Amino acid sequence: MLAPKTQKKPTMRPFLSTSRRFAEGADTPRAFLERCLDELAARDSQVGAFVVLDLAGARAAADRASARWHTAAPLSPIDGMPVGIKDIIETVDMPTEMGSPLFAGWRSQKDAACVSALRQAGAVIVGKTVTTEFAASVPRGTRNPWNLAHTPGGSSSGSAGGVGCGMISAGLGTQVIGSTLRPASYCGCFGFKPTVNALNREGCHDYQSQSCTGILAASLEDTWQVAYEIVTRVGGDAGTPGLAGPAQAPAAARPRRLVFLETIGWGEASTDAKACLQEALQRLKTAGIEIVTRHENRQVADTERELGAATALSTKINSWESRWFLRGCRDRDAAKLSSNMQDRLKESETLTLADYRAALLERARIRARFAELAGAAQGCVSLSAPGPAPAGLQSTGSPQFAVPSSLLGAPALSLPLFEVDGMPLGLQVLGFANEDAEAFATAAWLRDHLGGA
Amino acid sequence: MLAPKTQKKPTMRPFLSTSRRFAEGADTPRAFLERCLDELAARDSQVGAFVVLDLAGARAAADRASARWHTAAPLSPIDGMPVGIKDIIETVDMPTEMGSPLFAGWRSQKDAACVSALRQAGAVIVGKTVTTEFAASVPRGTRNPWNLAHTPGGSSSGSAGGVGCGMISAGLGTQVIGSTLRPASYCGCFGFKPTVNALNREGCHDYQSQSCTGILAASLEDTWQVAYEIVTRVGGDAGTPGLAGPAQAPAAARPRRLVFLETIGWGEASTDAKACLQEALQRLKTAGIEIVTRHENRQVADTERELGAATALSTKINSWESRWFLRGCRDRDAAKLSSNMQDRLKESETLTLADYRAALLERARIRARFAELAGAAQGCVSLSAPGPAPAGLQSTGSPQFAVPSSLLGAPALSLPLFEVDGMPLGLQVLGFANEDAEAFATAAWLRDHLGGA
Repeated sequence: MLAPKTQKKPTMRPFLSTSRRFAEGADTPRAFLERCLDELAARDSQVGAFVVLDLAGARAAADRASARWHTAAPLSPIDGMPVGIKDIIETVDMPTEMGSPLFAGWRSQKDAACVSALRQAGAVIVGKTVTTEFAASVPRGTRNPWNLAHTPGGSSSGSAGGVGCGMISAGLGTQVIGSTLRPASYCGCFGFKPTVNALNREGCHDYQSQSCTGILAASLEDTWQVAYEIVTRVGGDAGTPGLAGPAQAPAAARPRRLVFLETIGWGEASTDAKACLQEALQRLKTAGIEIVTRHENRQVADTERELGAATALSTKINSWESRWFLRGCRDRDAAKLSSNMQDRLKESETLTLADYRAALLERARIRARFAELAGAAQGCVSLSAPGPAPAGLQSTGSPQFAVPSSLLGAPALSLPLFEVDGMPLGLQVLGFANEDAEAFATAAWLRDHLGGA
Repeated sequence: MLAPKTQKKPTMRPFLSTSRRFAEGADTPRAFLERCLDELAARDSQVGAFVVLDLAGARAAADRASARWHTAAPLSPIDGMPVGIKDIIETVDMPTEMGSPLFAGWRSQKDAACVSALRQAGAVIVGKTVTTEFAASVPRGTRNPWNLAHTPGGSSSGSAGGVGCGMISAGLGTQVIGSTLRPASYCGCFGFKPTVNALNREGCHDYQSQSCTGILAASLEDTWQVAYEIVTRVGGDAGTPGLAGPAQAPAAARPRRLVFLETIGWGEASTDAKACLQEALQRLKTAGIEIVTRHENRQVADTERELGAATALSTKINSWESRWFLRGCRDRDAAKLSSNMQDRLKESETLTLADYRAALLERARIRARFAELAGAAQGCVSLSAPGPAPAGLQSTGSPQFAVPSSLLGAPALSLPLFEVDGMPLGLQVLGFANEDAEAFATAAWLRDHLGGA
């Protein structure tokens, strides 16, 4: 039986906009946390965003943050921000179970690099948020806070659900196919998948070259700040320069020209969802922004054609890259590995190193082709998902709209600007590799111009 | 008190050359393993190569391999090869302690990618071999099998010690500064540090961009085969093509021209060590091979000058990249982190992301400069260490000769061709990035031409 539909629209709890009041002494991180925890106490038994909580630790951390704000010495702008950590990411003080009974109670004995950075910045870690099994397809019970009968999306289900209804201001996620953008879109929060390698992934148990540490947050400014506080302390992946950009969220910048990328997702999108985007595009045109599409631009048409292979190619690459891990899981106890994962593993066992190398070359070629668009526009827009979160908890929905940025290694944002049938839907802003800050600047302008849902 | 000097020269146990007898039924992997285990029983109480053993598991694996050879269906040429796994690398059936009391008894609940590949290839995992603390400087008690009063080198101390005296045919190591080449040189075995990223490092707890999974083995052929069996099953690091080369060790190829790279190490090298290399160079010249040096070649002189910064630059890069991890260790229990590591951590805390980015650019520039040499020669030769293993167990010796290949991300081999004062010393062959097979071909010719010690 499906759970009853919730009565009121969820409200998010952005942190940076509130933190000005901490400086003035009108509010404290501890009080902020308590408001989050009230929401959590009221709703998490239904939403199921968390696998494990550390309320005592969170309260103690919030008290320390309160003391620092009181003496005007916060560790960072996110000092005291309540956050959740996707349970595919290691935490020294809580188990990392990866959504799998194979890792029930497993402890890493260390923090992942991004978690270490958040702690140093003063963030308050409320708990571990639900991930699908190994951040792939099989859901682990989280419900959409906008409607408990609907999926929150995945694989960053718990972080999106928790942020979407204000239990936390931000959550760490990951994305290798659509695991940050899709749940952000479904749960009505902001979602950011950075340029590949731009946020340090050590201690995150997703082993694919397209994998990114993603951020789900209650405002665009919170989103950027979390990313910035991570990169400035622990960088990007070892050997890479890491996310580039300013110490505060980039100011809104009006784009001159945007590419409307349909991608394969458009064929799946609902009429209402398409109407949302088309109306937004019309408003942008009215504002004098040139919108370029496949229909009149050869370069865009070529890109769209290339991106037609995004899912198959991503799947092949991911499949090879996670094969060693899934084999180990099957060998340990096949009964604890979902049939979905076992099927993936079998599929991966048909691949050779030569197949993989060919797939990498193909991906590199498509990335280079896409990068050529950077000279022609300030970014791309699309939907974040084919429609609002579908009913049912067995599937996390279609990732089609999110795959292109994963394959491309390009930054992408989901902005909670649309609403269809009382459920949120995201506008996607897809930028160019290593130009994450530019994508944020465009996104900020679009948010301001197109307004909320 | 120092342990007494051993009486006889250690003997290694190459596997591939013996395995022909498995096919003929004249020997079995189980019998081969028992010879290794006899050596282990006789000597490991003194050498201390292993942290933990799994003798029952090894015997069972060797029996399975024996059965496969008996039916002419080995899983790979290394089916049945006794190997050791450096204890910085994860194993599902044994703890991974990383040479640190902070990880005493810690279990990863999975095999590292390279370990998974070895098992699939039929390798017999005898146990976990000693690593210095976190694969850095602080030794954990292993002694040199050639002379128990001398260091085995580090950080892959146990793998080198175990291979050096025939307890195992091969051992996995890692190298980020000099952790594979140096112990190989000191313990008289073959050592191979591949092109950076060329062997999958997932599940290896060294977090630096220069880190490589290295191989220590009893013959050049064993060395290549272990590398090949890993890459063909689990590839290189995610997103990279992985080690390129044939399914059996590359045939010896006579180089036309070799660069003699002195590097900073030459200034530290002992007179005897220098004499070994100079004599070898003379023999190569006599054989008609052109030897190019800094003294008459501008391009080599430029490279040598650039490599002067190898240690400082590598240290800076490694320092930033391991900072998040060491911070976590200090936070958990500073008393369990060596003062050496605490000093490194303090040093790393003076670095900014901007410093790190600048260091990466500098490294990329030096790599590009070195790559230009590839057109001019078939490889470079040098010593693997400034001399044989020094007396004492407090230091693992100077890594100077090994640092250049680490900084350059280039393949390097240590060949046990020299002997000084009854102790082994390696000839280093340094190749060009992604040309590991070519480096092996050159190394094989040098081994054949220069002969054993």
